[in-house]
Amino acid sequence: MSGCLTVVGLGPGDDRFLTPEARKALASAQALYGYGPYLDRVPLRDGQARNPSGNRVEGTRAQVALAHAASGAHVAMVSGGDPGVFAMAAAVCGEIEDGPEAWRALDLRIVPGITAMLAVAAKAGAPLGHDFCAISLSDNLKPWELIERRLDAAASGGFVIAFYNPISTARPWQLGQAFARLGHHLSPTTPVIFGRAVGRDDEAITVTTLDKAAETHADMATLVIVGSPETRVVTRNGQTPLVYSPRMTAPVSA
Amino acid sequence: MSGCLTVVGLGPGDDRFLTPEARKALASAQALYGYGPYLDRVPLRDGQARNPSGNRVEGTRAQVALAHAASGAHVAMVSGGDPGVFAMAAAVCGEIEDGPEAWRALDLRIVPGITAMLAVAAKAGAPLGHDFCAISLSDNLKPWELIERRLDAAASGGFVIAFYNPISTARPWQLGQAFARLGHHLSPTTPVIFGRAVGRDDEAITVTTLDKAAETHADMATLVIVGSPETRVVTRNGQTPLVYSPRMTAPVSA
Repeated sequence: MSGCLTVVGLGPGDDRFLTPEARKALASAQALYGYGPYLDRVPLRDGQARNPSGNRVEGTRAQVALAHAASGAHVAMVSGGDPGVFAMAAAVCGEIEDGPEAWRALDLRIVPGITAMLAVAAKAGAPLGHDFCAISLSDNLKPWELIERRLDAAASGGFVIAFYNPISTARPWQLGQAFARLGHHLSPTTPVIFGRAVGRDDEAITVTTLDKAAETHADMATLVIVGSPETRVVTRNGQTPLVYSPRMTAPVSA
Repeated sequence: MSGCLTVVGLGPGDDRFLTPEARKALASAQALYGYGPYLDRVPLRDGQARNPSGNRVEGTRAQVALAHAASGAHVAMVSGGDPGVFAMAAAVCGEIEDGPEAWRALDLRIVPGITAMLAVAAKAGAPLGHDFCAISLSDNLKPWELIERRLDAAASGGFVIAFYNPISTARPWQLGQAFARLGHHLSPTTPVIFGRAVGRDDEAITVTTLDKAAETHADMATLVIVGSPETRVVTRNGQTPLVYSPRMTAPVSA
């Protein structure tokens, strides 16, 4: 039997976001790999081996799963959200490039999922309705100077910005510094959305402005969206305001 | 009965990408609105009214659906891909802002979907594995000068770039000009992916380089991804090469 590795996006939160393609891939796998809390979201099935690992061992996890697939097994690697967005798919591709020739011959499939910024945007309105970018604020894997350069480029280009990995115990100051940096380009009243644990029971959406954003609580389960100068807020009685970025942009004066 | 409007993302292509939440929203609606070809992807159900419209009447479509929902009906608006990415959710929010007060009181829900760039990226490897942006190349709704400014900002910032709406009969030259513009910032060997009709039977993924990209066929069903200087191509015998953007970035020398 020829082995295969399928990298499966679970989407954020609960099963309402799990696509039929992802469900099928999970059901047909002989062995599952992934960060423990993501694996816990996959229903147990008799005869299917589960191999949880910690959240800082992406490379090793990818190697072990690839070696298992190369031995002839049908292996699935689970990923929260979309595996292609700051997640396992790039780690798997990197290990294939650096690994034995046999890994390049494997049947590799990547099953997309709803990534966090889409789920948060849907809860808030349509903040990503116009040109936008996604930036990981983690400086574990790239220098902070590069992140600052990208913040400047994104804000001066008029992009809406989604922050992945905004904060962690080991990275407590980066989000505040990013807001301060954006403050050099954007109005203090620029809308900012904090989406925490979207798709889970404790989901929370907070809409604020750039000048107050630094004081708002964020954690590892939070995705942050910063509007562009075009982003608008529609107040609604007794409901969270709608935040959206119009598809139409006025001619630029500058 | 109090009305509601649910904007539902179908994902690209066939039902394999349709989330359980989207399926449920479609099944419970009394009336469906949307661009004809998207509506055609939703299974028929007795007693459910279908209201197809053309692809250039987003504002009017949103108004009619909102008025219908405000009359007390359960209305669903369908959108290809994700409704929040260059699609119907922003149009609905805009009409709510400009419309009668009653529309702000409506129960509005937006159901996210797999957007085209995630599906194309999954087929190609993990080109969006690092910081990226999404730009609509349509200059129907914004001036071309603004698009050029964003191309410059994105390329100089080292973002991977996904192009939505790359080309149409009325916009034949914009994609070629965008590639030429990016050529001022990026190496001629920068990987470029053309993903056409992903999720459909006639799906096609082409991997090429920036200097050859202009010659490659694109149409309205194509999504284009242009790599960053970090994006890598892994050749594979008898298979499409893998394209990925590593999560790790080396320190910047400049």
